[in-house]
Parts: sequence; C-alpha cells; structure tokens
Amino acid sequence: MGLTHFDDNGKAIMVDVSEKKETMREAIACGTITVNEEVYEAIENGTMKKGDVLGVATTAGIMGAKRTFELIPMCHVLPLSGCKIWYEKDPKNRTIYAFCKVKVTGQTGVEMEALTGVSIALLTIYDMCKALDKAMVIGDTFLCTKSGGKSGDIRNMKGHEKAFALLERTLGE
Amino acid sequence: MGLTHFDDNGKAIMVDVSEKKETMREAIACGTITVNEEVYEAIENGTMKKGDVLGVATTAGIMGAKRTFELIPMCHVLPLSGCKIWYEKDPKNRTIYAFCKVKVTGQTGVEMEALTGVSIALLTIYDMCKALDKAMVIGDTFLCTKSGGKSGDIRNMKGHEKAFALLERTLGE
Amino acid sequence: MGLTHFDDNGKAIMVDVSEKKETMREAIACGTITVNEEVYEAIENGTMKKGDVLGVATTAGIMGAKRTFELIPMCHVLPLSGCKIWYEKDPKNRTIYAFCKVKVTGQTGVEMEALTGVSIALLTIYDMCKALDKAMVIGDTFLCTKSGGKSGDIRNMKGHEKAFALLERTLGE
Amino acid sequence: MGLTHFDDNGKAIMVDVSEKKETMREAIACGTITVNEEVYEAIENGTMKKGDVLGVATTAGIMGAKRTFELIPMCHVLPLSGCKIWYEKDPKNRTIYAFCKVKVTGQTGVEMEALTGVSIALLTIYDMCKALDKAMVIGDTFLCTKSGGKSGDIRNMKGHEKAFALLERTLGE
Amino acid sequence: MGLTHFDDNGKAIMVDVSEKKETMREAIACGTITVNEEVYEAIENGTMKKGDVLGVATTAGIMGAKRTFELIPMCHVLPLSGCKIWYEKDPKNRTIYAFCKVKVTGQTGVEMEALTGVSIALLTIYDMCKALDKAMVIGDTFLCTKSGGKSGDIRNMKGHEKAFALLERTLGE
Amino acid sequence: MGLTHFDDNGKAIMVDVSEKKETMREAIACGTITVNEEVYEAIENGTMKKGDVLGVATTAGIMGAKRTFELIPMCHVLPLSGCKIWYEKDPKNRTIYAFCKVKVTGQTGVEMEALTGVSIALLTIYDMCKALDKAMVIGDTFLCTKSGGKSGDIRNMKGHEKAFALLERTLGE
Repeated sequence: MGLTHFDDNGKAIMVDVSEKKETMREAIACGTITVNEEVYEAIENGTMKKGDVLGVATTAGIMGAKRTFELIPMCHVLPLSGCKIWYEKDPKNRTIYAFCKVKVTGQTGVEMEALTGVSIALLTIYDMCKALDKAMVIGDTFLCTKSGGKSGDIRNMKGHEKAFALLERTLGE
Repeated sequence: MGLTHFDDNGKAIMVDVSEKKETMREAIACGTITVNEEVYEAIENGTMKKGDVLGVATTAGIMGAKRTFELIPMCHVLPLSGCKIWYEKDPKNRTIYAFCKVKVTGQTGVEMEALTGVSIALLTIYDMCKALDKAMVIGDTFLCTKSGGKSGDIRNMKGHEKAFALLERTLGE
Repeated sequence: MGLTHFDDNGKAIMVDVSEKKETMREAIACGTITVNEEVYEAIENGTMKKGDVLGVATTAGIMGAKRTFELIPMCHVLPLSGCKIWYEKDPKNRTIYAFCKVKVTGQTGVEMEALTGVSIALLTIYDMCKALDKAMVIGDTFLCTKSGGKSGDIRNMKGHEKAFALLERTLGE
Repeated sequence: MGLTHFDDNGKAIMVDVSEKKETMREAIACGTITVNEEVYEAIENGTMKKGDVLGVATTAGIMGAKRTFELIPMCHVLPLSGCKIWYEKDPKNRTIYAFCKVKVTGQTGVEMEALTGVSIALLTIYDMCKALDKAMVIGDTFLCTKSGGKSGDIRNMKGHEKAFALLERTLGE
Repeated sequence: MGLTHFDDNGKAIMVDVSEKKETMREAIACGTITVNEEVYEAIENGTMKKGDVLGVATTAGIMGAKRTFELIPMCHVLPLSGCKIWYEKDPKNRTIYAFCKVKVTGQTGVEMEALTGVSIALLTIYDMCKALDKAMVIGDTFLCTKSGGKSGDIRNMKGHEKAFALLERTLGE
Repeated sequence: MGLTHFDDNGKAIMVDVSEKKETMREAIACGTITVNEEVYEAIENGTMKKGDVLGVATTAGIMGAKRTFELIPMCHVLPLSGCKIWYEKDPKNRTIYAFCKVKVTGQTGVEMEALTGVSIALLTIYDMCKALDKAMVIGDTFLCTKSGGKSGDIRNMKGHEKAFALLERTLGE
C-alpha cells in the first residue's frame, strides 16, 4: 500500500473512484487563529454590533469549500449536500476556533472540503484584521471527525482535547 | 484606528487603495505539516525518485497564490510579479516546513498571497498523503517577513525561531 | 419557519439537502434590458447580419448559469442537465426580454441558476452596447416558473403578463 | 460609430485599449429587490440581530465585482483599487436598494464591475430569502454615475430620482 | 440530424441530457508537442533529476480537465470519477505525446474533458520551455478512444498509428 | 542558461519579472481543426445563417485567454489590453484556421494567452460539432509572431507558410 494519488510509475493521478460505493459521508475539520488583544476585541465587538469579521469569514469559507476541487489538484468535483462553518472562542489565549462540517452523498470523502473551508475562513479573518496585528498565527488545522467511507469512522481527539471540548459543546446544543 | 476592511458604519469593504503609492512589495509566509513516519518516508522518497508530493503541492500553491483575490473576499486583484514555494524538513519531528515568497509592484501588500500559497500547498500535501495518515496536523502558518509597504518592514521571528533558522538557511544559499 | 440559509443561531449555512429526494427540477427566469434606438437597431441588425450581441450574451449566460455555485455563496454545486437562453423583443419600448430555462436532476432547485443565467446575459448585452447608450436599464428579473421540488409548481404570472405572453409564444412553438 | 465590441467584420472582440490614457475612474451602480413582508422583516431583523442577509450579499457582491472579467466575455481584467457595496431601504414598498461603487486606475471604466457587483448582491439576497417568498422581483439595475473616462462624467438621474435621493443621502454622510 | 448544440432556431444551447441513461463512460485523448534538442534534453533531464516539466504539466492538465465546464461553453458540469495524464516520447522527432484518460458515471461523455486535459498539459509544457525554444509546435490533438455512451465505442486509429502504438504500450503494461 | 521556470535547485517557480521593463507586447498564435464534410458545411452555414459555431468559439477563446493565469501554473496574471480571435478557412482540406492576437502593456509576453485563446476556441468548435464527426483533429498550434519583449521580434513562418499566407491576408485587410 502507498500513496493512492500516484500510479505504479509514481505519476500523480486523480484516483479512479468509479467502483467505490456511493454513501453519505461527513467530515468536520478545525483550525485556529491567535490574535492580539486589539483584534480579539474588534472581533468580539464586530460579531455583536458591527464590522462582522466572522460573518465575512464564514461566507468565504463556505465558498472556498465548494471550490476545493479547483484548488487541490487531485480532489474530485463533489456536489456537496451541505456545509456549515462556526466559531468558538478561547478568550484567555485570544484564540478563535473555526469549525467546518461538510456532507456529501458520493464515492469519496469530504475531509479536504472541510479542511479547505476552515483554512479559507481563517485566512479571511487574518486578512480583515491584519491592519491591527502583524503577528497573528493560524494554528493547528486538522480533521476532527469523519464518517461514511470505507476506512471507517475517524475521530482525531488525541492532542486536540480542547478543540474537541468546544466541538462537543456545539454539537451537543 | 480600527479594522480597515470595514467602513465607518461597520460594513465590509474592499479598501480603497487608489491614493497609496505603488512600490515594490515582498512577503514570505511559512506553515508546517506534521505527518506519521510512513508519510514522511513516502514524501522523502517521492521527492527523490517518484511520486513527487512536494512538486504537486508547489504547483497548487503557486496557482492558489495567484487566485487569492478570488478566495479572500476583501483582497485586491494583484498582478504578482513573482512567486516561489519551497520546503524544509525537520526529520526528528516528521514536519515539513513550506515557505512561499511573493513579489508585486503595487499599491497593497502581498502577505495574503504568500499565506494562501502556503495554505494551499499544505492542504495539497495533506490530500495526497491522507490514505496513509488520518491524523496529520497543519501547524503554525504565519507571515515571516514583509517589506515595501507603508507600515515598514516586518519580521515575525519571535516564537518562530526554528522556521527562521530554516528560512535563513534557504535565503543564505 | 424562517430563512433556511441560517441556522438556529443566525449563522449563514449552506443548507443540508442530503435527506431531500432527488427529482427532476426545472426553472425558467426572465429579465429585461431597455435600450435607446441606436442600440436597439444595432442589436436587431447584429442578430441578422453581423455583430451578434445576443449570441455572445447567450454564451455568457449559459456559462454564468453553470458557475452559479461559485458566485452565490449558499448555492449548491449542481450538475445541470440542460440550459437554454433565448430572447423576445418588444420594439415599441425598445426592450429585450431574456429567458433562461435550466434543468437538473437533484436535491435542490435551479431557480438561482436560471436567474443568474438571465442576469449575466443581460449584463453582457449592457457591456457590448454601452458605447452607444449610457443610460440603459436592466429591468425586472424574476422567476417565471418552477417545477419538480417539494414546494410544488410555481408560476409567477401576476404583474408579469407581458413576459408570460412572450414566454408562452416561445414554449408553444 | 457603432458597437465597439465588434470589429469591422462584425466579429466580437475585446477592445484594444492599449492607446487609452490611464486615469482614475469610478462608477456607482444601483439595483433593487422587492420582497414580501415576511422577508422584509427577516432582512431588517437579520441586519440588526442575526441572520445577516445583507452582510452575506455584500461579500458576494464584492467578490462578484472582482470576477467581472471572468463572467462578461469582452470585459478587461481590471485590478480594482476599491469596491464598496451598501443598501438603502424603502419600507413602504418593501424594496431594498443596493449600491456598488468601484474605483480603478486604468485604461477602461468600471461600470460593468459596479453593475455586476450590484447584480450578484441582489441575486444573493434572492437566494437567501427564497424559502419565504417565491415572487421576489429584482428591479431596475442601472449605472448611477461614472467619472474619469474619455466620455466624460455621466449622471443618470432621469427616471431614477428615488434611487438618487437615497444615493445622495449616503454620499452626503 | 445536425449540430446538437443548437436548437431548431439555430441558438446555442447546453443540450438537455436529463433523459439520457447514466452509464460509466471513459475517454482517452492524445496530443503532441515537438520541441528543439535543447528543450528535449531539458525535459528528459528534468523528469529524471530535477526541473520536472512533465510533472507540472500533469498537475495542470488534471486541474484543467476538471474545469472543462468552465472553459467550453456548452459542456456539462461533470463530477469526474478519475483522471490520469501520462507521456510517451519519440526521441527521433523530439516529440512528446501526452495522453489523458478520464472516467465518469454520468449522462454525457467525457471526450471534451480528456481533450482539455491534454491541451492544458501541452500548453504548460510550452510555457515552461519557451525560453529555450521559440518555435515549438503543439501537434495533432484528437480523441483516441471512447466507450460507454449511446453512440457506441469509438477508436480513432486511422492516421494516428504511431500514437496508438504508444498508447497500447502503456495500456498493455 | 536553462528553463527559466525552475530555480537553481530545479524547483518550479513563477519567474520574478519585477526588474523587467514594462513595454507594449503583442503575440499572435494560430491553430487548426480539420473536420468532415458534414461539419464543414454546418460551420459554413452556421456562420452565415444560424447555429454560429465560430461565434461561440470566439467568445470562449477570448474568455479562455483572459484566464490563462488560472490554467497554466507558472503564467503571470496579466491585465490584457486587447484580444481578438478570427478564422480563415481552407475548404479543400476542410480545415478551419483559428488566429488569436493578444496585446498587453506589461513585464512579460502574451504568447501563452494567444496560444490558450486559440486552444480553447478550437476545443469549443470540437465540442459543438462532435455529434457529427467523431474523428476531428486539432492540428498544429503555434506562435506566429511576437513583438515587444527583450528577446526581440519573433516570426515563425518556417513550416507554416499556409497559415502565414492566411494571416497576412487578414492583417493586410
């Protein structure tokens, strides 16, 4: 077994999934951005009153998730059946957690769409706040959970306990 | 002073840069991906013999950097004059460092293009290796250096000493 | 009941349609552009002899309809099974009526695709004629008919009797 | 004189602007959407508390304006120097007025960018509200003002007095 | 019978395929580029050691194949289930043969996707080598084989014996 | 000297053109498609009466030329100042010659834009006629002329005498 995105001669390919079963698949990804106090407050205020940084980032993230196949060379064109982006905040560390959940009924999974949605949302936050903070850091971006594919359900909690606590708070709502 | 991407009523805008001076601007961004041993070796081998994960990621990252204006809502259309992506490896931690340097002669900076280039390259690595590792993590993505704009030169070394050591090794070549 | 493109917390989402039934759906949209005499004649002549304004607008409109999911943030990626754009003319008012019919077999409707197709076609007419008329007006753009979805068949004739007369003339052909 | 988007043989062309002077150009376009009471209230509430329809539409409109060259066949690629979208409301008629102002320093005007920005914003409002109103109408979309080009300043107030009154209210702020 | 991309009035349409059967379809296209000795050697060396022209071209070709629906006006949006690009070389004539195989389960064929994949790959080779050869020629691009549609299997060997010999060498591996 | 799209380590880069002089540049490319009698007549008739294959192909080609930077990985974003596509016919061989002329004032040439414009136009002709001819061939695509860059004027007439005769007929008009 090896890298499925290469054929036996080591050439990059878009994997043939035509024999795979069409199932309902779901993936949730998470990523963070850590900002200075000025930005953290601007985002907080924005969300509540005006200057809605997270609103713009959500729109950009959903649009980005839909365009994953244009951005990531070997990703399949997938007619996503749903996409949702939301945020949790860790005020102590001035960190925003962005989550993206994607669903599809198809022959291949949507982890890349969820990860791309998170990345574009975080980059958008960065862009909108960079006048106030030149040293923001986009932190760990990873796949939280995945279900519906051949490789079984995945749950990457190890090392990401905090993100999972926030995730469960949302999902439990 | 506040978030420049919002007007006085808190509405998101694409900032008017028509009065800003056209200067040569440059930005370098960095990000990482940490993988398991099997993937790390596959990438190493790929680069040397076949299955060139990093080659595909470079192409995707450069193409992504050029399309930043389509992905990040308030970014300007910028005719980049150059873009380069390269990698450094930390075998002990099985971490790949991706760097993206972007140049433009224009009225606004290219930090978003450099960050987007890095993000798309890292997502591409993720995509091509995800069959072998379900728990990869895309780590700190940040702006290393920036020059040429009104806000002066930026150098975000603090907290990123390792990335800077690798960056200087490349630039010093 | 409320705006389906927002979740219970008021966050914008791409609606989850994974449980909806896949049916054959169709939508027809209509819009107009009113121009001065010089342009009206140029379009008339163009269609007959050379300088085919409406031909270019049709191509642009069909291409735009296919890209609706890239333009309208919460629209789903839909593999349209057919798209057609055509025009009817009202010489007395120097008004061009553009119609766009879209079909899909899917879990969500195609009214946005039909409306986007009409809008891009009309904007293209505007672009190609703007040297001759600085005061053109793109008039009422609306959904004429829709069929195949859960909400039943729709027929928005009220207030649009003229457009419907022209539409029926075409469909009756 | 005739349609500049066609050559002497009537073939569509992208006009050669290489000899035109590079000047600062600006255009403002306007369009409307008229909705039922339920939607009008949802939009009002959304803007104030949650479910921000107009915020999503603004983001989509700005992104659409930047991509005008991809959508309108004969439009030039223009590195817009600024883009702003805003709304005025006419509660009596349950009509939303969308305005888009675009600036560029270039060899050709930005009226198409302003009109495209308005159209995509209005289509986005339509999309987000269509569950509550199947009969919305996107009304007159037109160029309000234009400045900076060879053809002199344009001001299309005739027949659009209401839109101009709202426009001046905003610009006078 | 006539051109299916036009309706009875001669207007261009995106053909309605909603009544066609969904079957597994495959197409292979081929095209060539002939270069001077310096470039031929650079490509040979690149593939083996560094400066991987064909690797970049493969990535571009696969990405181009996925975007066929955006580029070719009347093509349907197709969720390709697989795409592969590879090369064969004719050293005597300094000619590179590019092949692209595309698969889909759908209502319409993928010959345009295969042809577009080949064209974009060849254009990419041209771009990367044009500093060394100002007179390269992209030669015959054609559909080699097609299967799975209503019109039966196609095999265009006549006049393309050399390409077919190379194709069979690969497929026979 | 070597492949400029690779750095000294053989990594693909988007060449830094920031030090190059901004000059007016122009390129003309040519390509052909050879079709059977039925298609040749359909195209002839289409151009004259209805079913305008070449009109759709022109629109697609111009749009494709503008998007070259999205398709060819190492191409720069170029704000083309003009683009024109036209055709000449060789009835004896049932061959259509497509020409694309592109102009820009910039730091790098537009041969790739001209070649991409030609390729997309030819692929569009193929798409629109493929119901009538399963064995069309897109023939030699090459750069005819180029001017305005550092490498001096280029004129690739050798081996392309026929195309040049047709080209001069057009330019001499």
